[in-house]
Amino acid sequence: MPRLITLTSDFGLRDAYVAAMKGTILTIAPEAQLIDIAHEITPHDVMEAAFVLNQAVPFFPEGTIHLVIVDPGVGTERRPVALRHGDHYFVGPDNGLFALLFEDKTPDELVVLDRPAYWRVPNPSKTFHGRDIFAPVAAHLAAGRALGEVGTPLSALQPLHWALPIDDSQGIRGWIVHVDHFGNCVTNIPRSLFHKRRTGRALKCYVGNAILDEVHTTYGVVDTGEPLLLFGSSNFLEIAVNAGNAADLLDIRRGTPVNVVFSEER
Amino acid sequence: MPRLITLTSDFGLRDAYVAAMKGTILTIAPEAQLIDIAHEITPHDVMEAAFVLNQAVPFFPEGTIHLVIVDPGVGTERRPVALRHGDHYFVGPDNGLFALLFEDKTPDELVVLDRPAYWRVPNPSKTFHGRDIFAPVAAHLAAGRALGEVGTPLSALQPLHWALPIDDSQGIRGWIVHVDHFGNCVTNIPRSLFHKRRTGRALKCYVGNAILDEVHTTYGVVDTGEPLLLFGSSNFLEIAVNAGNAADLLDIRRGTPVNVVFSEER
Amino acid sequence: MPRLITLTSDFGLRDAYVAAMKGTILTIAPEAQLIDIAHEITPHDVMEAAFVLNQAVPFFPEGTIHLVIVDPGVGTERRPVALRHGDHYFVGPDNGLFALLFEDKTPDELVVLDRPAYWRVPNPSKTFHGRDIFAPVAAHLAAGRALGEVGTPLSALQPLHWALPIDDSQGIRGWIVHVDHFGNCVTNIPRSLFHKRRTGRALKCYVGNAILDEVHTTYGVVDTGEPLLLFGSSNFLEIAVNAGNAADLLDIRRGTPVNVVFSEER
Repeated sequence: MPRLITLTSDFGLRDAYVAAMKGTILTIAPEAQLIDIAHEITPHDVMEAAFVLNQAVPFFPEGTIHLVIVDPGVGTERRPVALRHGDHYFVGPDNGLFALLFEDKTPDELVVLDRPAYWRVPNPSKTFHGRDIFAPVAAHLAAGRALGEVGTPLSALQPLHWALPIDDSQGIRGWIVHVDHFGNCVTNIPRSLFHKRRTGRALKCYVGNAILDEVHTTYGVVDTGEPLLLFGSSNFLEIAVNAGNAADLLDIRRGTPVNVVFSEER
Repeated sequence: MPRLITLTSDFGLRDAYVAAMKGTILTIAPEAQLIDIAHEITPHDVMEAAFVLNQAVPFFPEGTIHLVIVDPGVGTERRPVALRHGDHYFVGPDNGLFALLFEDKTPDELVVLDRPAYWRVPNPSKTFHGRDIFAPVAAHLAAGRALGEVGTPLSALQPLHWALPIDDSQGIRGWIVHVDHFGNCVTNIPRSLFHKRRTGRALKCYVGNAILDEVHTTYGVVDTGEPLLLFGSSNFLEIAVNAGNAADLLDIRRGTPVNVVFSEER
Repeated sequence: MPRLITLTSDFGLRDAYVAAMKGTILTIAPEAQLIDIAHEITPHDVMEAAFVLNQAVPFFPEGTIHLVIVDPGVGTERRPVALRHGDHYFVGPDNGLFALLFEDKTPDELVVLDRPAYWRVPNPSKTFHGRDIFAPVAAHLAAGRALGEVGTPLSALQPLHWALPIDDSQGIRGWIVHVDHFGNCVTNIPRSLFHKRRTGRALKCYVGNAILDEVHTTYGVVDTGEPLLLFGSSNFLEIAVNAGNAADLLDIRRGTPVNVVFSEER
């Protein structure tokens, strides 16, 4: 069975950067199957990349290799790494993105990529490790190399933390962490925390120019153009507009605060 | 031979939605070959999706499975369906898109997707049937399941109609149904109707801020920057500008009326 | 081993054009492996397409077939060609793009596509040779046909030249040939010319609203938001801003002049 490699980057789709990585992979591992996750990550935004990967990685089969290149520190002292987390493999720069993705759980295996034999060339470009170090290493893993062959064990990832919502018995204060292509606004308030704090009470949610007081199950249960609260496919509280763009209509963007207040009485 | 699955959606390329569907498919049918048709369909625009599919589907080989997710009614009572039309298979929500695509011809086989055994999970997300119902069903079809296994026969699709041009012996009134990436403006006036009504006469075509009186065969037969009428690769009347953007230059957008008037004399 | 076909065009990703080509290829050569290089080339811009291909082609394996459709003259007298250059094959219109790509070196084999037996249909669309001539020919090459089967030998490509920088012992005057997705601004000044002329001297580089006097190795060696000169992964002089968009911040666009002046003393 050919090995699956996914690609995620902030390289966009106008330049040759993604293709140069794919050509490099297929030169080393012609049988690899390549699937793009996203290349329109906001430039240098490791947090957005981690958010997007969180929504995609769980749906890929065991053994998938995820090549993740959002690399503002390319050519500096940040370490190039490869790792195994459960049944999935990851290759990319150690700049906090992987720590966000695994929420501080130590990977099951982790190596620093210090073996030029597995790079495209012994003297890689200082500005494009994606092509010269990371893509070749992903290809060698796809071709059957073990993590222990392509690098030297490392004990821990560079840490980085999600900013968590603030909560108490009266309510939850979070914010918008992602505005998707439809203008749906995803908060950092997980379903489990929300229900634990709500305990069946009425609520008001203040966000942008809207005040919402009900949680629905899907978009089409309110009228076209009406805003709503729901738990989206990511299991985080989301603000949406049925058949419309919530970010535009409600004046919400990434970073906008979201205040959920639970009523006194049950 | 691996089965081909095409993907069309309004999910865009910045989020994880398309990748989550692809990972789900490849978990069930690792041998499937995935080809994107387009994911930049205007959100919720089933008519644009049908237009784009019309230009792509005929060029795919027999047996191709087309996964089509433009689904403003996700989680409501609109039915999830799979069907066979000639040699091609289709999976998606029954919201009129397939009726547009087949121009009201009843599919050769049609089933409602009511068998959770072929879904990703028995309790699918209410907001992402693409990932939890449609992609898994497409994958099971690719892996060899018959339509009759994945759902229960259904007699008819939800109807939806293209608005047809109005025509008589003096002329044709249609409008712009698609503005492509180059700014070429495609009308809803088919080549056959045009020739049937023209009967060799001179004509004037009024559209945006232009009046055109000749039909050319390709862009480069007029000077750079000049507007022209032609029948494009879709066999509908098109307004274009040689090496330029007709929509911008002639103030045309989707929905702009197009009036073709044939002269009295031959 | 399946044959690899790359696709490059100015078709964008909203329409069915790319998918119609892919379906056509897979109908003829179901085993072909398709990799997109870029479809967001500026419409009709053969120079940008040649620039992007230059950065991608060298990283693909031997035997790769590159389908390149930036074709402002479709349907006119420009010739449809296929060719071999070293270990790579190319198919597309002969409009100067290939001459730019190979920098006037004559291809090792070159044929004009004059054999309708290898087209999709004997009467191809006058506006979409990508689908009806070029994609089918690429597919037939992938399926094992030789160049000499799909066309008739031709002696030379349509010439087109890169505008070269002007240089003397005092300095180099070039300009910006590409602004990438990050806003990095790539000049037409190659590393070799730069070092030959600099001979170790101090320099000032005038470009947009910036004056720069040092060449760095990578982005992260200057502070965030600071501009810098470097040789990027393409080996041309580049103007960048660490973690920022140089084009926006320094008022640079394609065509902006770049003046490098070397100091009198060493």
